[in-house]
Amino acid sequence: LTINRYKKMHLGIILCLVISEVSSAVLDQRPSGKSSWTGKLLVVPMDGSHWTGVKAVAEEMGRRGHTVIVVIPEISMRLGPGKHYITKTFPVNYELDLLNEILTEHVRVVTSPGQSLLKSMTSTAAIFIKIFNMMVSTSESLFKNQELIGFLREQNFDAVLTDPALPMGAILAYNLSVPAVYMLRGMPCGIDAAATACPDPPSYIPRFHTQNSDRMTFSQRVLNFFVSILEPLICKFVYWPYEEVTFNFLQRDVSLTEILKTGAIWLMRYDFNLEFPKPLMPNMQLIGGINCEIGNPLTKEVEEFVKGSGEHGIVVFSLGSLVSSMPKEKAAIFFKAFSMIPQRVLWRYTGEIPDNVPENVKLMKWLPQNDLLGHSKAKAFITHGGTHGIYEGICHGVPMVMLPLFGDQGDNVHRMATRGVGVVLSIHDITAETLVDALNTVINDGSYKQRMEKLSAIHNDRPVQPLDLAVYWTEFVMRHKGADHLRPAAHELNWLQYHSLDVIGFLLFIVLIVTIATFKCCALCWSRCCRKSQKRKED
Amino acid sequence: LTINRYKKMHLGIILCLVISEVSSAVLDQRPSGKSSWTGKLLVVPMDGSHWTGVKAVAEEMGRRGHTVIVVIPEISMRLGPGKHYITKTFPVNYELDLLNEILTEHVRVVTSPGQSLLKSMTSTAAIFIKIFNMMVSTSESLFKNQELIGFLREQNFDAVLTDPALPMGAILAYNLSVPAVYMLRGMPCGIDAAATACPDPPSYIPRFHTQNSDRMTFSQRVLNFFVSILEPLICKFVYWPYEEVTFNFLQRDVSLTEILKTGAIWLMRYDFNLEFPKPLMPNMQLIGGINCEIGNPLTKEVEEFVKGSGEHGIVVFSLGSLVSSMPKEKAAIFFKAFSMIPQRVLWRYTGEIPDNVPENVKLMKWLPQNDLLGHSKAKAFITHGGTHGIYEGICHGVPMVMLPLFGDQGDNVHRMATRGVGVVLSIHDITAETLVDALNTVINDGSYKQRMEKLSAIHNDRPVQPLDLAVYWTEFVMRHKGADHLRPAAHELNWLQYHSLDVIGFLLFIVLIVTIATFKCCALCWSRCCRKSQKRKED
Repeated sequence: LTINRYKKMHLGIILCLVISEVSSAVLDQRPSGKSSWTGKLLVVPMDGSHWTGVKAVAEEMGRRGHTVIVVIPEISMRLGPGKHYITKTFPVNYELDLLNEILTEHVRVVTSPGQSLLKSMTSTAAIFIKIFNMMVSTSESLFKNQELIGFLREQNFDAVLTDPALPMGAILAYNLSVPAVYMLRGMPCGIDAAATACPDPPSYIPRFHTQNSDRMTFSQRVLNFFVSILEPLICKFVYWPYEEVTFNFLQRDVSLTEILKTGAIWLMRYDFNLEFPKPLMPNMQLIGGINCEIGNPLTKEVEEFVKGSGEHGIVVFSLGSLVSSMPKEKAAIFFKAFSMIPQRVLWRYTGEIPDNVPENVKLMKWLPQNDLLGHSKAKAFITHGGTHGIYEGICHGVPMVMLPLFGDQGDNVHRMATRGVGVVLSIHDITAETLVDALNTVINDGSYKQRMEKLSAIHNDRPVQPLDLAVYWTEFVMRHKGADHLRPAAHELNWLQYHSLDVIGFLLFIVLIVTIATFKCCALCWSRCCRKSQKRKED
Repeated sequence: LTINRYKKMHLGIILCLVISEVSSAVLDQRPSGKSSWTGKLLVVPMDGSHWTGVKAVAEEMGRRGHTVIVVIPEISMRLGPGKHYITKTFPVNYELDLLNEILTEHVRVVTSPGQSLLKSMTSTAAIFIKIFNMMVSTSESLFKNQELIGFLREQNFDAVLTDPALPMGAILAYNLSVPAVYMLRGMPCGIDAAATACPDPPSYIPRFHTQNSDRMTFSQRVLNFFVSILEPLICKFVYWPYEEVTFNFLQRDVSLTEILKTGAIWLMRYDFNLEFPKPLMPNMQLIGGINCEIGNPLTKEVEEFVKGSGEHGIVVFSLGSLVSSMPKEKAAIFFKAFSMIPQRVLWRYTGEIPDNVPENVKLMKWLPQNDLLGHSKAKAFITHGGTHGIYEGICHGVPMVMLPLFGDQGDNVHRMATRGVGVVLSIHDITAETLVDALNTVINDGSYKQRMEKLSAIHNDRPVQPLDLAVYWTEFVMRHKGADHLRPAAHELNWLQYHSLDVIGFLLFIVLIVTIATFKCCALCWSRCCRKSQKRKED
């Protein structure tokens, strides 16, 4: 089950799609101006929703006067040019059709009702292998592109910004000897904890996909511990295809963990309104909510629809572009439910439009989700629980009905449910009644809104906004050629040494020796005494 | 030896004296204005240099429009009124003479040449007990002052700001049920790590007073580990006098660690330019260098003396007010050394002025140390290595000659020496020649200045200045009535659970049972097989 979950997460990592983006136009409204010092930044992004935060930083860095070069494959879902950076593309040996095929297949697996566990696992594994092969192939294409690599080497970059979930950028930074800034939500099998030397006790830090919270029963702790000892094995399994690619490129044997350890700054796309409180390392900076800082005005048409909702307000509904091809029967459930509520609904929907769409529902091919959630009329948010969507809900204090599909979404929604700011439903067995119930609960039970507003107030109350913080630390790494002063000496210890097991062993050995010696001495003394007294008796 | 060191540290905690202060006048030059929301802050400070940072925050909070009440004993070395806060004093049952007596006695012990270890330990222990009794007595006086406690209770404070090294403020906050903000350099015997649930592996985090760095040999790790397992015992010993006082005040049995665990935010007076990189918890904020943010112009007289130093520049010399009564023979060594160098020297000196003071030496009763170090002529800084002095050296990039006296100073100077930005000498066996050598080294060997400037650049490059950060998080706690979202669930686990030892025990038990069962089964099968084949043979 665990392995299946990890596979699902990988799907999530590459496939979860656009929720919203910080556009160049929006960045131009930002007050901060040019940097007093400018340098050269290489950006190696990952496709899918992972692009959102990286793009925002790339744009802002370019706007501040840095030379920003973004390296992307010719074939991708979302990666593309921007206003403030230069794009360098490289050819890959697959077609767009492969991406579409994977996407379609994945939607089928995720939304199809009750399959057997074995079948679901097999289908997911098949897609996972396809995706992972594609990622490895992309990396290979870049590494073999000597012209591009040569060009990048000549640029003498000051830093590389990359998402290590696709390790291509991290390996490239290592090869170019340029300090790396990582931006990520997390990595499978705790490889990020190992690479940052961040303590990660399984006693109160729930492992991904266990559905545990930070307060666990004994049996939950047993499961959590068990998963935590399996993680290194899973990592080995997940990342082994990279070993050959890395060896071919670097011409020496370096593990991915060793490469990741060289990361100067880790920009983590969470904070403690989503994650449970846990230790951090000095080079970890929290930028959760980087996507929801800035608002744009709604179009006139949308604004009118929203205002027309009156006192009942609106419900914002998006499961990401993935579920644009939701099967008719599934969509019918949602349409039925929406016809039973007084709110108006804005739904990101790109599938076939049925005849009987209720009047209170507006179907849109692209949803200005962040701006809608920021509107005072927003009463509830139906989401699949991707990190970006969750943070947009938190930023604007809108309670949520959550339908997790795959990847980290199961954990995200579980954390939100634990905080009492949303209700979780299953996409597989959802009915119009359960959906209406859930919506009524989060809208009419004031406690959800109250808790969400408190969470929102805490999230928004920070000395530096996430995008500024991300830009600050990227510039820091460029200015100082890394952040060596934040690198813990723990990286130089092996597992035994780190946990002081060699010291404990040594001390136990000393205790043992002393005990034995004492015992032997006593025995010797005793036997001598006995002999003497025996002798005396004999005398 | 370790216990002796801890005792010395305690001396340091209460006795180490003014290096510099952020004055009200300086705060008024700050650009930031009033807070949009104002509340009530109670400040329970600790005497000595610990007052510096707490006073700066108290003043700034008052300036921003909050009602700030500072509670201090009638008798103290440095605590006193300010421009932007209200002071409430309470009587204590000791006289200023006691303070002076302790001070004089302590100076004698610290500066006297080569005593026997036993004698030094006994004298230090005697002073330590006096100081600690005084601290306990101060707390008792406050807690028994029902009028003042009643007044404080009526104020309905939004937060308490206190230095937990004197636990009075933390216990008071606990009693008043007001969230607490702690400001500290660290606490003896790792009680701060226990109270924040911050991982603190002895394999690479050097224990105070071991003189270890973060990169240790095996034997250093053994010592470090040994000290780390002794720490809880030392804590018990150090803080036991508080148990009775706490019980009498709270009328129930709560350990100091339990009380400290309720701290909402921990403002740590270090960063990773001084400390070695180590894990942090979400509610820890680094405010190292809070004392050296803002500069004041020098007086005309001092400015002229400094400018007159020409290309050779100046040396700034202060061992804190403690060593104002430095014995004549010791002072003579310094005078002799200074007569041998081309730099001009500004010396904080309140002792008897000898006849033959060299022309290049200016003796001052109070030294504008931070402003002198910020002057372009500053070439070297002779310091005893208190945190404030060290940070002023770092802020302005001035290499140091360090003469640690007691407390955390030994560790501070060791960290600076490890970074190659200063030279350590012993006050006990210093000679004019060693001092001149050390000064010439840090001034003329460019690498010291170079490394110090790099350290300085990194320290000063931060998204939020330390004082602003301290004020921000104090206001955060006031606005949100604490910072519960940053409180790790680790606080609810006991030691066995936290380290998953119960889970490991359980899993080992299962493995044992399975092994035994398997073995028994095999044995049974084997014996049956044997019996059958035997039977067959018999047949």
